[in-house]
Amino acid sequence: MHRILSLIPALLLLAGLSAAAQNLNRRELPEMELSHARRLLQVPSVDGFIPLKCDFHMHTVFSDGEVWPRIRLDEAWTDGLDAIAITDHDNYRPHKDFVSGNYTTSPAIVYQEAAERGILVIPAIEVTRKMPPGHVNAFFIPDTDIPELHDTSRIAFMTAMTKLHHMGALMVWNHPGWAAQQKDTVKWFGIHETMLMNGWLNGIEVFNTSEWYPVALQWAVEKNLAPFANTDVHGPIRSVYNYSEGFIRPMTLVFATERTKEALHDAIVAGRTVAWFDGMLAGHPPLLAKLFAKSVSSARIQNRGGKTTWMISNTTDLAIELKGTSAEWKGTLSLPPRSAGNLTVKEDISSLPVEVTNWHTGMKQCLTTDLLLGN
Amino acid sequence: MHRILSLIPALLLLAGLSAAAQNLNRRELPEMELSHARRLLQVPSVDGFIPLKCDFHMHTVFSDGEVWPRIRLDEAWTDGLDAIAITDHDNYRPHKDFVSGNYTTSPAIVYQEAAERGILVIPAIEVTRKMPPGHVNAFFIPDTDIPELHDTSRIAFMTAMTKLHHMGALMVWNHPGWAAQQKDTVKWFGIHETMLMNGWLNGIEVFNTSEWYPVALQWAVEKNLAPFANTDVHGPIRSVYNYSEGFIRPMTLVFATERTKEALHDAIVAGRTVAWFDGMLAGHPPLLAKLFAKSVSSARIQNRGGKTTWMISNTTDLAIELKGTSAEWKGTLSLPPRSAGNLTVKEDISSLPVEVTNWHTGMKQCLTTDLLLGN
Amino acid sequence: MHRILSLIPALLLLAGLSAAAQNLNRRELPEMELSHARRLLQVPSVDGFIPLKCDFHMHTVFSDGEVWPRIRLDEAWTDGLDAIAITDHDNYRPHKDFVSGNYTTSPAIVYQEAAERGILVIPAIEVTRKMPPGHVNAFFIPDTDIPELHDTSRIAFMTAMTKLHHMGALMVWNHPGWAAQQKDTVKWFGIHETMLMNGWLNGIEVFNTSEWYPVALQWAVEKNLAPFANTDVHGPIRSVYNYSEGFIRPMTLVFATERTKEALHDAIVAGRTVAWFDGMLAGHPPLLAKLFAKSVSSARIQNRGGKTTWMISNTTDLAIELKGTSAEWKGTLSLPPRSAGNLTVKEDISSLPVEVTNWHTGMKQCLTTDLLLGN
Amino acid sequence: MHRILSLIPALLLLAGLSAAAQNLNRRELPEMELSHARRLLQVPSVDGFIPLKCDFHMHTVFSDGEVWPRIRLDEAWTDGLDAIAITDHDNYRPHKDFVSGNYTTSPAIVYQEAAERGILVIPAIEVTRKMPPGHVNAFFIPDTDIPELHDTSRIAFMTAMTKLHHMGALMVWNHPGWAAQQKDTVKWFGIHETMLMNGWLNGIEVFNTSEWYPVALQWAVEKNLAPFANTDVHGPIRSVYNYSEGFIRPMTLVFATERTKEALHDAIVAGRTVAWFDGMLAGHPPLLAKLFAKSVSSARIQNRGGKTTWMISNTTDLAIELKGTSAEWKGTLSLPPRSAGNLTVKEDISSLPVEVTNWHTGMKQCLTTDLLLGN
Repeated sequence: MHRILSLIPALLLLAGLSAAAQNLNRRELPEMELSHARRLLQVPSVDGFIPLKCDFHMHTVFSDGEVWPRIRLDEAWTDGLDAIAITDHDNYRPHKDFVSGNYTTSPAIVYQEAAERGILVIPAIEVTRKMPPGHVNAFFIPDTDIPELHDTSRIAFMTAMTKLHHMGALMVWNHPGWAAQQKDTVKWFGIHETMLMNGWLNGIEVFNTSEWYPVALQWAVEKNLAPFANTDVHGPIRSVYNYSEGFIRPMTLVFATERTKEALHDAIVAGRTVAWFDGMLAGHPPLLAKLFAKSVSSARIQNRGGKTTWMISNTTDLAIELKGTSAEWKGTLSLPPRSAGNLTVKEDISSLPVEVTNWHTGMKQCLTTDLLLGN
Repeated sequence: MHRILSLIPALLLLAGLSAAAQNLNRRELPEMELSHARRLLQVPSVDGFIPLKCDFHMHTVFSDGEVWPRIRLDEAWTDGLDAIAITDHDNYRPHKDFVSGNYTTSPAIVYQEAAERGILVIPAIEVTRKMPPGHVNAFFIPDTDIPELHDTSRIAFMTAMTKLHHMGALMVWNHPGWAAQQKDTVKWFGIHETMLMNGWLNGIEVFNTSEWYPVALQWAVEKNLAPFANTDVHGPIRSVYNYSEGFIRPMTLVFATERTKEALHDAIVAGRTVAWFDGMLAGHPPLLAKLFAKSVSSARIQNRGGKTTWMISNTTDLAIELKGTSAEWKGTLSLPPRSAGNLTVKEDISSLPVEVTNWHTGMKQCLTTDLLLGN
Repeated sequence: MHRILSLIPALLLLAGLSAAAQNLNRRELPEMELSHARRLLQVPSVDGFIPLKCDFHMHTVFSDGEVWPRIRLDEAWTDGLDAIAITDHDNYRPHKDFVSGNYTTSPAIVYQEAAERGILVIPAIEVTRKMPPGHVNAFFIPDTDIPELHDTSRIAFMTAMTKLHHMGALMVWNHPGWAAQQKDTVKWFGIHETMLMNGWLNGIEVFNTSEWYPVALQWAVEKNLAPFANTDVHGPIRSVYNYSEGFIRPMTLVFATERTKEALHDAIVAGRTVAWFDGMLAGHPPLLAKLFAKSVSSARIQNRGGKTTWMISNTTDLAIELKGTSAEWKGTLSLPPRSAGNLTVKEDISSLPVEVTNWHTGMKQCLTTDLLLGN
Repeated sequence: MHRILSLIPALLLLAGLSAAAQNLNRRELPEMELSHARRLLQVPSVDGFIPLKCDFHMHTVFSDGEVWPRIRLDEAWTDGLDAIAITDHDNYRPHKDFVSGNYTTSPAIVYQEAAERGILVIPAIEVTRKMPPGHVNAFFIPDTDIPELHDTSRIAFMTAMTKLHHMGALMVWNHPGWAAQQKDTVKWFGIHETMLMNGWLNGIEVFNTSEWYPVALQWAVEKNLAPFANTDVHGPIRSVYNYSEGFIRPMTLVFATERTKEALHDAIVAGRTVAWFDGMLAGHPPLLAKLFAKSVSSARIQNRGGKTTWMISNTTDLAIELKGTSAEWKGTLSLPPRSAGNLTVKEDISSLPVEVTNWHTGMKQCLTTDLLLGN
C-alpha cells in the first residue's frame, strides 16, 4: 500500500472525532492534560540494596518557596521519587506576613497523603547561615524545638548541631560552591573540619539546582561523606527544569535494604549514595563499579575472521559513556538510557578495561573498570 | 562530505566540553533549565484592535490554589499573556489555618512586579455558589468590602451582583457545563436570565481547564455575551497541561484599542473576545470572519493548463482547517500555526467559499467565509 | 539557595562554551545530530519465548519505495528491531528506468551489514494483485525464480502460492482493509478461504501504516492466523511517523525460542505473534493474558481501616489501560510505559477481575483477565 | 472548579473515542503521522530584498546519497525551503551497479513536482577533488556535458572551471574544514586564490552538516565571498538531525528581489547571503546589521524614578543574544525565536550599543550595533 500522507494534523482531527462521539454540553479534551502517572526509573540493585530515588532539598511557601507542600508530593509522585525531604529554612520566611507555621508545618501537611501514595517524607530543616558554614540541611530531625536554631551566632550553631546529632539527625552541607557565598573559591573551612571530626557531617551536595561542584565530590571521596544531588527547588519543578524528551530530574540514589525511613537513614550513614544529574553520576568508586556491572550486559552478535562483534546493552535509565583504555579496544561507545551498541574485538577477549567518562569518582577522575564480554 | 554520525549524545559531549572550559569548583549546566524568555504569540489585529492574550480565571494559596501569586505572574510572562485575573474564591479558603488574607491579597502581592513586567492584573473574585447560579467571576471589582459576598443566600447574591454592577464590575458565568454542578445537563437557569436582563452578565466561559461547552457558545452568540476560555488553574500550570511541542495554553483573546485595563474593560463590554483552546477558536461569526481574513494570504505558484496553483499561508499561531464548500474546490487544507499549503483551481477564480472547521461559531456551526485568492 | 533562573538559552550558551574550548578551524556541533544508538524496548518473555521486535513490510527504490535498502537497516537498528523483511513488489517498479534489480536485490544489498549489526533480514516479496486476493507478502522465499509471479492471472497466482508454500515460504495477507482495494467493506473472499484451507496463509495484517482493521483481528482469532502490525513504509520512516516523545514505531512481536531466522519462522507458524501499534496490542487471548501477567506487578503500600493500597507497576514499554469489572474495584487505572499507579481495595483481596481496554482480542473484545495482588 | 486530573493518557483515550466513532473495518490513526504541512519561517526582508531559505548541498541515490530525489523535494517543502540544489557528485557513484543516470538525473526527476509545489531547483554538481582544491559545488550549470569533469587532473579542473564560469555557473568551495581533507589545518591554497582572482569563486561554506568553520567566515568577509550553510545531507534529513522542539534545519538565507532563479543567481553574485545554523548566523557585517534592525522592536513598559523599562521583542525565527557594551547597560538579554524580554535604562536613552553574540561577522567577531529604544 502506498499511502498519501494526510495533511490533517492528528490532534485537530481527533478533536473532531471525539466531538462527534460526545454531546454538545461538554467535550473533554484530555489530550491537553499532563499525565500524572508515576514514572518508573530503571536503576539496578547493588549487593541486594535497592536504589531509592530521593530529593533531599526543596522549599515551600512555609519558607521562601512558592508552592503549597502538596505540590512537592505531587511532583515526587510523577517523577518517580521514593523519598523527599522538605527543607524549609529555619529563620528565612519572606511570606510570613501571610503564612504562619514554620519548617515543621510543610511536612506535617503532606504526611497522610504521602503514606497513601507510598512516598517517604523525611522531617528536615535547612539551617541557614552565612559562609562558613553556609547552609546545612538536617534530616530525621526530632519534633522538639531547638532554641539555638533561632540564634545565628557561631556558638549557637555548634550547640544546635550537637543537639541534632545526639537526637539522631543527619547533616549535609548544601551547595558548597554557591557563587553567592563563595564567588571565586570553594573552600573547606575549619568549621566543616570540626563538624566532620565530631561526626556531625554525613554528606555534601556535589550538585544543586543546575550546578555541580567537582571539588565537593573530591572531598566526599577523601573524607568519606555521602554525595548528594538535590534540586533545591523553590518554584514549581517544571518551571525550573526543561522537561523535554528524556529529561530526568536531578536526584540522590540511596542504596538501602528496603523502602523505609530507617533503611534510608542507615544507608546514608553508611555512605551508600550516588548523585545523579544531567546524564551524569558522581559517587564513590566501589559503589559505581558495582552499579556499572549491574547496568550493562553483552551478547555475541557475530564471529568472523578471528573477531567477535558484541552487542553491549544498557537496560537502565542511566547514561553510560564508554572509552576503551587498552590496546584491545581504544574506541568510544555511547549508551544512552535503554540503548545498545556494538563493538568488535579479538575472539578470545572476555573483558575490556574501560573508563566510564560520565560517571565521576573525583574532581578529575571518572570510573575505571572492566567491561565483561560474554557474561 | 559523507559523515559517519557520531554515537556520542550531544548533551553529554557538550557537558564534557563545557566542563573542560570551566574550573573544578563549579560547573553550570544551563541546558537543564527552562527558558523564561517571554513567548510572543502571533495573532493579527482586527479593525485596528490589538489582540490581548488573557487568562481570566486562576487560583493561588489564598483560596484553594497551590501556588504563591507570583507564580501566576511568572507563568503569564513565559506564556506571553498580556493580562490575567487572579480569581480566588470569596468564601472557600481551605488553607486558611495557615494562610491569612483573602481574594484581594493575591493580586495585591503581584501588582508592583506586574507593572515592571508589563502585565495587566485585573482585580477579581470568584463568587462561589451552588448551581444555580454556579460560580461567577467578577472583574474590575472595587477595593471596598461587599458584605453580601459573605452570605450564600440567593438574595444576598442578587444584592452583591447589583452592587458590583453599579461599581463597574463585569461578570462572567464560569464553567456552565462543569459535571460537579450539572452532571447530565447544561441548563440556562432563571437566575442567569435575570442577570442577563439586568445587564449584569457580560460573558460566559465556553471553555474551562480542558473542557469545552458548545451549548455555552450557542448562548454567547444568541444572547450577545462575550465568550471566554480560561484555565481555572489551581496547581502549577505546567503540571496541569502537557506543554509538549507547540502547546499553547488556553486563553481569551480580547481585541482592544490598546494595552490598558480601561481598553480591556471596554472591549469585554463590547463583546470583542474570542476563546482559544486546543487549536480551536470559538467566537462571534463577524469577529472570526475578520480574523480569518487577516490570518491567511495567497501567492500564485503556477499557471498551467487553465489552472492556477495557489500557496495559502497562515503566518499566525492559530490553527486553520479549511474545507471547500463549492464546486470549484471541495478539498480540505490543513494549516497548522505558521504553515502553508497549496491548492489548485481554475485560473479565473478569485475567491472560494470555505468552512473553517475548527473555528466554532455555534453549538453545531463553524465559520463559513470566503478565501480570497490573489490578495 | 534561591537561584535566579538564567535567561540565556542552554544550547546557545553551550555552543558558546564549546566554541571557547575549540579552535577556530572547525567547531563540531553534535547537539544538532540525531543519536543513532540502538533503542532497547522492554517487553517481557512469555513461557520462555523471547519477544523479537519485527517489521515485516517495507519498500525501497527497488520497487516503489524512496530510500536505499541500507536506510531500512539503519532505521531498524535505531528503532530497536530484531528482524525486518524488505518486501519490494514483484511487478510494480516505477523507478525501473533508472534502477535495475528487483525484490531480491534490496535484501542482498544489506545482508552483510545486517549480520554485523545483529539484525535478521528475512527474504521476502510483496505479491501484488487486485482484490481479491489483494496484496500478499511471502516470507522465507527461496532464491529460485518463480515464473508464475510475473503473470497476474488468478491461476498463475495459485500456482505461485503452491510453489512458495512447498518451498517453505510463509504467507500473510496485507492491509485487508485498504480503502483503495475495499472502500466500503472488508471482505473475506473465496480465494482467502482457499488459501487458508490449503495451509498457505499463515497470518494477516491487522494494522498497516496508520490504519487498524478490527475485523481482521477477529478473523485472526477465529481462523487461527498470526496477527501482524507492519509499517509498509515507502519513504524515510521519520517522514511518515511523528517521532515525538515516547513514540514507538508499529511492529509485530514474535515470541520465539531464540533470535534466529529458524526460530522466527517456527514462531510465526505457531501463531505466537502480537500486533503492537499506537499504544495498543492486538492478539490471541491466551498469549495476551500471559504477557499481561508478566508485565505488571504489585507492591503493598499501606494497610488502613481494613483496606490495602497497592502500587501496580508496569515496567514494560507497553501501555496498559485497566478497568475493574467486579464489585471489589470498578475503577480505571492508566499505566503508560514504565509507570505505576495506586489502587485501594479490601484487605483480603488477592486478585481483581479486569479488562485491559487497549489490548484487543477481537473485533469488539479486549483482554479480560485477573490482576494479581501480592504477587 | 477544582478538577482532579485524569489518569487516562490522552492518546489512548482519544484512540478509544475515535474507535467508537468509526466502523470495525478500518480505523484511521492520523495522530501517528507526521504533518506534511509547509513550515513558514519568519525572517524579515532587508532593503526590500526578500529572504529565500535555501539548501545548496544534498545528495541522492544518483551519487552517494541514500534517498530518491523526490524525498529531497518533500523535505524542502516540509522544512519551508524556497530553493534547493541537488549536488550529486560528478564521478563518485557507489550505487552505479544498480542505478543509472548521473548528477543531471536527480534534478530532472523532480522539476515538474517542484514547479507545482513552488520550490526552485537549481541545476548543480559537486565537483569532487582531493584537497586542494577539495570539493567545489557549481550551480546554474548548463545542460551540456563538460568532458573535463571526467578527468581528475589539475589542468582539467581548471579548464572545467573556466568553461563553467563562462557558461554562467557560480562556484562555492565546500566544507573547507572537513577533517578528512584537512585534519589539523584549514588552509587557503594557491588554487583557491587563483579561482578567486579569476572570478570563479562566488562563495564558501562556513557551515556543513554539523560543523562550522570560523576561519572560512573570516575569508568570506575579507575576500568578499558569499557565506553558505548547507546540510550536505546523504540520508533522510530526519535521520541526520534531531528534529526536537524548535529545531531549524541549517540553511543559507539569500536576500533576493523576488522568488525566481534569476534573482537568486544575482543575489549570490552580489554576496547577499547569510549562513544560519544551530541558532547562529554568520555573514557580512552590514547585512547582519540591517537584519538585526528589522528583527527587533521595543515598547515602553514603565517609567519610574527616572528610569524606563523597555520590552524588546524578537518576532522572527532567528535567535538573538544581546550583550550591552556601554555604561548605560552592561547586561545580557536572550531573545529566542519569537520571544521578548525586558531591560531598564535611564529615561532619556534612545539607543544602546550592543553585541549580538550569536551573530558572527568574523573568526573572532560578532555583530556590534545599536539597539534602538522607542522605535
